[in-house]
Amino acid sequence: MSSNKYVYLFEEGRADMKQLLGGKGANLAEMTRIGLPVPPGFTITTEACNEYYRRGKSFPENMLEQSFQALSAVEEKTGKRFGDRDNPLLVSVRSGAAISMPGMMDTILNLGLNDITVEGLAALTGDRRFALDCYRRFIQMFANVVLEVEHHLFDDVMERYKKKMGLVFDYELPAEALASIIIEYKSIVLKETNREFPQEAREQLVMAIKAVFDSWNNQRAIVYRKLNKIPDELGTAVNVQVMAFGNMGADCGTGVAFTRNPSTGEKELYGEFLVNAQGEDVVAGIRTPTPISRLKEELPDVYEQFVRTCQTLENHYRDLQDIEFTVEKGTLYMLQTRSGKRTAAAAVKVAVDMVEEGLLTREEALLRVDPDQLNQLLHRQIDPGATLEVIARGLPASPGAASGKVVFDADEAEKLGSEGEKVILVRSETTPDDIHGIVKAQGVLTSRGGMTSHAAVVARGMGKPCVCGCEAIKIDYAAEQFTVDNLVVRKGEVISIDGATGNVMRGEVPMIDPVLSREFATLLSWADEIKKLGVRANADTPEDAAKAREFGAQGIGLCRTEHMFMAQERLPIVQEMILSDTEEARRAALAKLLPMQRDDFYGILKAMSGFPVTIRLLDPPLHEFLPGAEELLTQVLEMKHTGGAPEEIARIEFLLKKVHALHEFNPMLGHRGCRLGITYPEIYRMQARAIFEAVVRLKKEGVEVFPEVEIPLVMDVSELALLKREVLEVYEEVKQETGVEFEFSIGTMIELPRACMMADEIATEAEFFSFGTNDLTQTTLGFSRDDAEGKFIPVYVEKKILKDNPFAVLDRKGVGGLMKIAVEKGRSVKPNLLIGICGEHGGEPLSVEFCHQVGLQYVSCSPYRVPVARLAAAQAAVRNK
Amino acid sequence: MSSNKYVYLFEEGRADMKQLLGGKGANLAEMTRIGLPVPPGFTITTEACNEYYRRGKSFPENMLEQSFQALSAVEEKTGKRFGDRDNPLLVSVRSGAAISMPGMMDTILNLGLNDITVEGLAALTGDRRFALDCYRRFIQMFANVVLEVEHHLFDDVMERYKKKMGLVFDYELPAEALASIIIEYKSIVLKETNREFPQEAREQLVMAIKAVFDSWNNQRAIVYRKLNKIPDELGTAVNVQVMAFGNMGADCGTGVAFTRNPSTGEKELYGEFLVNAQGEDVVAGIRTPTPISRLKEELPDVYEQFVRTCQTLENHYRDLQDIEFTVEKGTLYMLQTRSGKRTAAAAVKVAVDMVEEGLLTREEALLRVDPDQLNQLLHRQIDPGATLEVIARGLPASPGAASGKVVFDADEAEKLGSEGEKVILVRSETTPDDIHGIVKAQGVLTSRGGMTSHAAVVARGMGKPCVCGCEAIKIDYAAEQFTVDNLVVRKGEVISIDGATGNVMRGEVPMIDPVLSREFATLLSWADEIKKLGVRANADTPEDAAKAREFGAQGIGLCRTEHMFMAQERLPIVQEMILSDTEEARRAALAKLLPMQRDDFYGILKAMSGFPVTIRLLDPPLHEFLPGAEELLTQVLEMKHTGGAPEEIARIEFLLKKVHALHEFNPMLGHRGCRLGITYPEIYRMQARAIFEAVVRLKKEGVEVFPEVEIPLVMDVSELALLKREVLEVYEEVKQETGVEFEFSIGTMIELPRACMMADEIATEAEFFSFGTNDLTQTTLGFSRDDAEGKFIPVYVEKKILKDNPFAVLDRKGVGGLMKIAVEKGRSVKPNLLIGICGEHGGEPLSVEFCHQVGLQYVSCSPYRVPVARLAAAQAAVRNK
Repeated sequence: MSSNKYVYLFEEGRADMKQLLGGKGANLAEMTRIGLPVPPGFTITTEACNEYYRRGKSFPENMLEQSFQALSAVEEKTGKRFGDRDNPLLVSVRSGAAISMPGMMDTILNLGLNDITVEGLAALTGDRRFALDCYRRFIQMFANVVLEVEHHLFDDVMERYKKKMGLVFDYELPAEALASIIIEYKSIVLKETNREFPQEAREQLVMAIKAVFDSWNNQRAIVYRKLNKIPDELGTAVNVQVMAFGNMGADCGTGVAFTRNPSTGEKELYGEFLVNAQGEDVVAGIRTPTPISRLKEELPDVYEQFVRTCQTLENHYRDLQDIEFTVEKGTLYMLQTRSGKRTAAAAVKVAVDMVEEGLLTREEALLRVDPDQLNQLLHRQIDPGATLEVIARGLPASPGAASGKVVFDADEAEKLGSEGEKVILVRSETTPDDIHGIVKAQGVLTSRGGMTSHAAVVARGMGKPCVCGCEAIKIDYAAEQFTVDNLVVRKGEVISIDGATGNVMRGEVPMIDPVLSREFATLLSWADEIKKLGVRANADTPEDAAKAREFGAQGIGLCRTEHMFMAQERLPIVQEMILSDTEEARRAALAKLLPMQRDDFYGILKAMSGFPVTIRLLDPPLHEFLPGAEELLTQVLEMKHTGGAPEEIARIEFLLKKVHALHEFNPMLGHRGCRLGITYPEIYRMQARAIFEAVVRLKKEGVEVFPEVEIPLVMDVSELALLKREVLEVYEEVKQETGVEFEFSIGTMIELPRACMMADEIATEAEFFSFGTNDLTQTTLGFSRDDAEGKFIPVYVEKKILKDNPFAVLDRKGVGGLMKIAVEKGRSVKPNLLIGICGEHGGEPLSVEFCHQVGLQYVSCSPYRVPVARLAAAQAAVRNK
Repeated sequence: MSSNKYVYLFEEGRADMKQLLGGKGANLAEMTRIGLPVPPGFTITTEACNEYYRRGKSFPENMLEQSFQALSAVEEKTGKRFGDRDNPLLVSVRSGAAISMPGMMDTILNLGLNDITVEGLAALTGDRRFALDCYRRFIQMFANVVLEVEHHLFDDVMERYKKKMGLVFDYELPAEALASIIIEYKSIVLKETNREFPQEAREQLVMAIKAVFDSWNNQRAIVYRKLNKIPDELGTAVNVQVMAFGNMGADCGTGVAFTRNPSTGEKELYGEFLVNAQGEDVVAGIRTPTPISRLKEELPDVYEQFVRTCQTLENHYRDLQDIEFTVEKGTLYMLQTRSGKRTAAAAVKVAVDMVEEGLLTREEALLRVDPDQLNQLLHRQIDPGATLEVIARGLPASPGAASGKVVFDADEAEKLGSEGEKVILVRSETTPDDIHGIVKAQGVLTSRGGMTSHAAVVARGMGKPCVCGCEAIKIDYAAEQFTVDNLVVRKGEVISIDGATGNVMRGEVPMIDPVLSREFATLLSWADEIKKLGVRANADTPEDAAKAREFGAQGIGLCRTEHMFMAQERLPIVQEMILSDTEEARRAALAKLLPMQRDDFYGILKAMSGFPVTIRLLDPPLHEFLPGAEELLTQVLEMKHTGGAPEEIARIEFLLKKVHALHEFNPMLGHRGCRLGITYPEIYRMQARAIFEAVVRLKKEGVEVFPEVEIPLVMDVSELALLKREVLEVYEEVKQETGVEFEFSIGTMIELPRACMMADEIATEAEFFSFGTNDLTQTTLGFSRDDAEGKFIPVYVEKKILKDNPFAVLDRKGVGGLMKIAVEKGRSVKPNLLIGICGEHGGEPLSVEFCHQVGLQYVSCSPYRVPVARLAAAQAAVRNK
C-alpha cells in the first residue's frame, strides 16, 4: 500500500503529486527533477499528517524511521552529518499543504544547531558571528513555534542589546553580544517551559515535525481555510531541506520574486532581495528589502542565472511563478516555486499575454482567471483629475482605492467592519493574526514591509487596496494615532489610500468608474465565443440596465416592479390602493399609478432595446407597503396620553387595524406573488397595461423591444393559466385602442418545490421558466433568509453542516435536484422551452457551472456580476466539454 | 360517435351507464330492464348537458330531434299524445346527475297541461278537481323553476283561498276554487314575466329541459358540489317520464321508502306514504306523511307487491335502496331507486349484515362504508343516566346529540357558526337554500316534515343530529322565538337535541362516550385483517394514548413535546431558560424541567406499552413561549405614562428587547426544529435524558416500551448525525448511571423538500422516517398554513386552482411526488427502512390510500381518526390489490 510510504526524497517526487507532497514539496521535487539548483531534502506526506490526526496526534508507524532513512540519504549527498560536531548538517523544516496558504503555517530554520554544533559551524565557515546568529535565530524560532514561548520575550532581549550598544540593525551585533544573547535566550526557554532547550538534533527534528502537523489546526490556519473554502481534510506535508545560508556576508542574501508583475501583469521580473539575511526576513517585512534589480548590480552572475532560471520555470509551469531563493556565498539556491498570487488585472493580463506568447490556448487562459476576482476591476477608483492632499507615499502593494476611518487594531477593524463601518487598518506590519481584521477593512496601510510582505500578499489575494512600507508614517499604538512629520491622524479620522500609486490621503477622495483594459475585453470576448449560457442582468432602472449593457448583458432576466412602488411619491398612492375596501377604489388608485409604471417600463425597455426584458409582476405581500404595527401602536398610545387630535388618533387606529388584518405569520409563504394577482386581478392588469402601453410608444418610436411578462410564485398551472388570460385580455384591449400589434411572451418564475414537481403541466402554459433560486432555496431548505443568515447559517457553516451559505452558492443536491426535475419535466413538454435563472446565484461561478450542466439557456445577475458570469459560463463550457 | 346519441329510452339503458344517464336515469332503465313497473320515458344524457355549456348554453345539434323521436316512442307505448286535447300525455321532467344530489336539482311534474289539455285530462279521468289540481301544481312548479317566479306569490293565493273557505289542507279545495286559482296563477305569471304562461306542450318541454340544464349551475347545486367534492364537469341528465298520478283519490298516493332502516341499519322496510298526493309532497315535508306500514292496511295488495319489489331491488343491487313510488288507482309505479343514504351506524350494520346474509364479500362490505362517516360514531352522546328536561319530542331523523343557541335563520346560523358559536338551526322546514346554515350548525330541529324530509336527508348526509317533524313547537319567525305550550324559547337560548330519540331539551345536557356496536368491531376487525398499513395515533398525553389504544391504534406516531412545555406551571421555567444568556443558566432551568418531562414520558410510554412511541424533540421556535411584542409594548407605554414602578418597567423592557431579538420574519422557516438542537444541544440532551430515565423506570417495573427518538426538521444528514451523537451520548450516560440497557431507535421527520431530495443520505443515519406532511405541504406549496387557510386557500378552492385544501387532503402530485422520491431514495439505502406519516393527512382516507400506494408502513392520526384510518387503509388494500 502506498499509504505506507510516508516520506519522499525530492528526487522521488513530481509537480503532479501536490495532493500527497503539498505544493511546496511537489515543486521542490519538480525543480530537482528538471535540474535546477535545489538544496537536497525530503518531504513527509500529507497522508502522514492525516494519519497523525486519525491516531489522535500520534505519528503513523514507520514514519520516523522513513524520515531518518531519508535524512541519511541527504547526509550522504552533502557529506555532512546531522548533529555532527565537526561537519554538522543543518536543515529547514517547513509546512506545505496542497493549496498554497502563504504565511499561515510555521517554518523553522537552522535546525540541528546546539551548543556543540554551533561551534562546528563556526569552525567550518570560519565565521563565528554567522554561526551564533544562526543559533540565536534557531532558538528564537524553535521556542516560538514548537515550544510556544512568546516572540516578544526574545525581541526585547535583542532590542536591549542593540540599544545598549547604540546599534540599529540586528546584523550589526558582534559575536560576543550574540553569545550572551544565546545564553539569555536559553534561560528564557527554561523559565517559560520548565525545561532546557533541546540539544539533541534528532529530538529537535521530531519536535519540529510534530509542530508543523499541529500548526495545521492552529487558529489562523483554520480561519484562512474557512475564508478560502479549503477543506480541512487536506492536511499538510513537512519539508525537511538542507539549509542554504543567505546570512554569511555581503555575497549572500535571500529574496523572493515573481516572474511577472503580480500587480499589473507586466512581463518584468518583480521582486525583492535582502543582502546578508536569512529566509523569513523578506516576507516578514521587518526590514524593507531592495528591488530585485539591485542583485544585477551586486551579483551580476547570480542575477543572470536567476533570470534564466525564472524563464525556465515559467516555460515549464506555463504560469506566473512566485519564487523564493537564497544566495550563499555567490551560489544560487532555489527554495520554492509556486503559481504566483496576483491581482485581477494581472491575472487577466498574464492570461491574455500568455496566449499571445503561444504559452497557453484561449481555453486554458480562460481557466486561469478566477471569475470572482474580476469584480475588483469593476469598482471605482480615485478620480485622476482630483486634487489630492497626499500626506505620504508607500509601496503600491494591491491596487484599488479605499476610504475609511483609521483603526489600529485588527479586532477593532473586525468589529467596526462587521457593524458596517468603513475602516482602514493601519499597522506597522501585519501578521497572520491580523487576517480577520483585514477581511473586514476596506484596505490596509503598513509602515514597514515590502511588496511581498504579509499585508501585501494577503490584500492582493482578497482584492483589497493596500499600501505598504510607508515609512513616513510613525504609528503610536498607545496614543491611537499616527504622525507624518507634524501632522497627527487620530483613530476614527478618515483617510484614503490608493493601492495603485501608494498614495495616502486625508479624508475622502472623489472616485470614478474604472477603465477596463484591452486584455479584459479580449478575455471576455473569448469567453463569449466559448460559453453556451446567455448572460442577462437583474435591473430595475434604466441606469442599471445601461450599466448592465456596458458590462455585456444580453437582456434583463429580472425586472422587479415592487421597487417602483416604493418610491417616495408613489407610496401614498400604493397605500391608498391597499386601504381600499372596494375594487372601484382600488382601481382608482391604480389608475394614478398607471402612467408612472408606464414611464418605468418605457425607460427600462428602451435602455435594453434589442434584447429581451423579463418583467415580473408585483410580488411582495401588500403589508410591506404599510408601516409596522409597533410603530403605529406607539404613536397611538403616545397621542392618547399627550392629548393628540381625535381624528388623527382615529386615522392611525384605522391604519393599525388594517395592518393587523394584513398581518401574516410567515409573509414569505403568504399572500404574495401570483396570489395577489388571483385575488386582486386589477393590480396585475394595471401592470400589464403599463407594459403594453410602453411597448406601443416604443414601437411608434421605432425602438425594438422584447418584453417577457413574468408571473411569480406559481405552484400550479391553473394559476398561470388564469393570470395569462388576464394579461392576454389587456393586450387585446391595448391592441384595440392603439391599433398596434407586437410580440411578447408570458412565463413564470419557478421558485417553489411544487412548481418543480409540476413543471410539465406548468410548461403547457408557460413560454419561459426563470428559476427564482432565492425563494426556491428558502422553501426547499425551509430557511427564511432574513432569519437564517443572521442566526443559524453561520453556526451551520461553522459546524460544517453546510459547506456554503446556500443563498450564496447554489445547493446542488437539494435545490439543484429540484431544478433538474423541473428542467426535465418542462422540456418533456416543450423541448425548446426558454429556461434561465434570476436568483442571486446567477452571478456566482459554482452556481453558473451548475446552470450550464443542467442545460439552462441563460443566467441573470446584478449588473456588476455580469463579467463574472460571462467568464464563469465560459469556464463551465470548457470544463464540461 | 356515441356523443351524437344524446337521448336514450329507458329500455336502452342500464345501471352501469350512470356517468352518461345520471343515477336516476340509469336506475330507471335498470328497473325497466328487470321488469319492474316503471312508467315509460327517456333520458337526455349528461353529455348533452356538458355540450350545452360548451356551446355557451345552447342545445347540441340533434338533441331536440332525438328527444321528440323518443317522445313519439313513448306516445306509442302509452297510446296517449303529447299536447293532445282528448288523450293528453303528461310527463315529469327531472334532473339526475351521476352522483345523487338529493333536493338540489329541480323537478317539474304534469308537464303537457294547458288550458285545453286540462279539460281532456278531466274528461279522461272523470275527475275535474284532479285535473285542475294537476294544472295548478304544474303552473306553480313551472313558473317557479323555469320562469323564476317566486314561490310564495302562489302560496299566498292558496292560503287566501283556504282561509276564505275555512279549509286546512290543499286537497280540500273544490274544483271551482282551483279554477279561479289557476286564473290568478296565470295572471301572476303574466305580471312577473311579462308573458303569458306557455300553452304549447313542446315549448313547455324545451323550456323545462333548458331549466334542468341551467339548474346544474344554480347556487345551491354549486354549494352542494363543493361541500361534497363533486366535480363540476359531471353535468346532469334530464329524465322525461310519463306521469303516474298519486293524487287521484284515496286509492292513490305517493311514497318513499328505504329497504332497511337508514338510521340504524335494521332490516325493516322504512318509509312514508302520503295518500292522495303527488310527487314532491313527501320529500318537501309540507305534510307530515304516515309510516309505510299504513299502506299495508289501506292497500294490502299494493303493499305486498311493493315489499316484493323492494326485495328484488335489494338483491339486484346488493345494497340498501332508497325508493320513490306512486300508486295510481291501486297500481304501483316505481319512479326511482338508488343507493340509500344512511347514517354511519346504519352503513356499518348494513354492510356487516349483508356479509352475514351472503349478499356481499367482506371486501365489498369494507368498501361500502365511507371512512369519514365513522367519525360520527365516536363522538359523544347524551348521558342516558341524565335527568333531561324534555320539552318536546319529534322524529329521530339523524342520530347524535347536540347543544347550541337557537337560531331561526340559515344566514345567521352560518355567520355565528363561522365565528365559532354553537348553534341549533330551528326551522318549520328546511329547503336547499338553507344548506349553508346547516353546514355550520351543530344540529337541526324542524317542526314539520318526516324522516325523509329535506332536513333529515341532508343532516344524515352530514352526520349532524337532526330532530324533525316536531309539531309541538310553534315557530314565530318575526318574534324570533318558538313556543311549546306556554314555554317560550327565544333566539340565543341554548337547547339540546337528540337525533337518536327525537328529544328536545332546554339548556345543555350531560354527554357520554359512545358505545360502539358489535358490527363496528366486526367491520374493523375485517379491516385489520386486510389492511397493509399500520395505524398509529398522534398523542401527547397518557389520556390521548389510552383513547387511541381503545380505538385500535398500534402505537404513537407523533408525541409532540412542546405542549408539555406550555403547561402553566412550566412556562415560567421555560421562559427562564430562554432568557438565559449562558449555557450554565440554561442548564439550570432545564434541570428543573427534567423531572417533569420524565414523568410525561413515563406516563405516555406506559399507556402505550407493547407498542412503539415516536417522541419528537422540541420543535417550535423559542419565541412561541414568550409574550407578544405589541402586548409588552402596550404595557411599557401605559406604565410609563401612569407612573409604573421603574424596576417593573425595566423588567418588561428587558423582556421586550429579548422578544425583539428572537423575533423572526418567518418563524415557520426559522430557528426551530433540529436547528434548536444544533444551537442549544442542552435542550435536546435534557429531553433525551428524560426519555431514557423514564424507560429505565418502566423497565424496572417490567413494562415493555419501544421509544423512537425523532429529530424534527432535518434537511441534511449531518444535522441528524450530529444530534444522533448527542442522544447516543446521553444514552451511554444513563446506561452507566443505572446499569440498565434497552432498545430504542433514532430517526427523523421528513418535512422539508430538501429532506426528500437527500433521503438516501439521510437514511444512512436514520432508523425511521416519518413524513411531516403539514410542514412539507407548507414548504412545497409555499403556503403558510396560518395565513393561507384564512386568506387565499378558500379563493383558490373556489376558483378551482386547488381541488381541495392541501392541508386536509394530501396534494398527491406536488407533496406526494416528493414523498415518492423520499421513499425510493430512502429504501435504496435501507430496503426495510420504517416509513410512516404523522401529518394530519394520516387520518384522511384519500391521503391514506396514497400512503398505501407509495408503500409506507404506517399512518398516524389523531385518536378519534384511528378507526377512520383503519377502514381507509383496508379500502386502499382492497382497491389497490
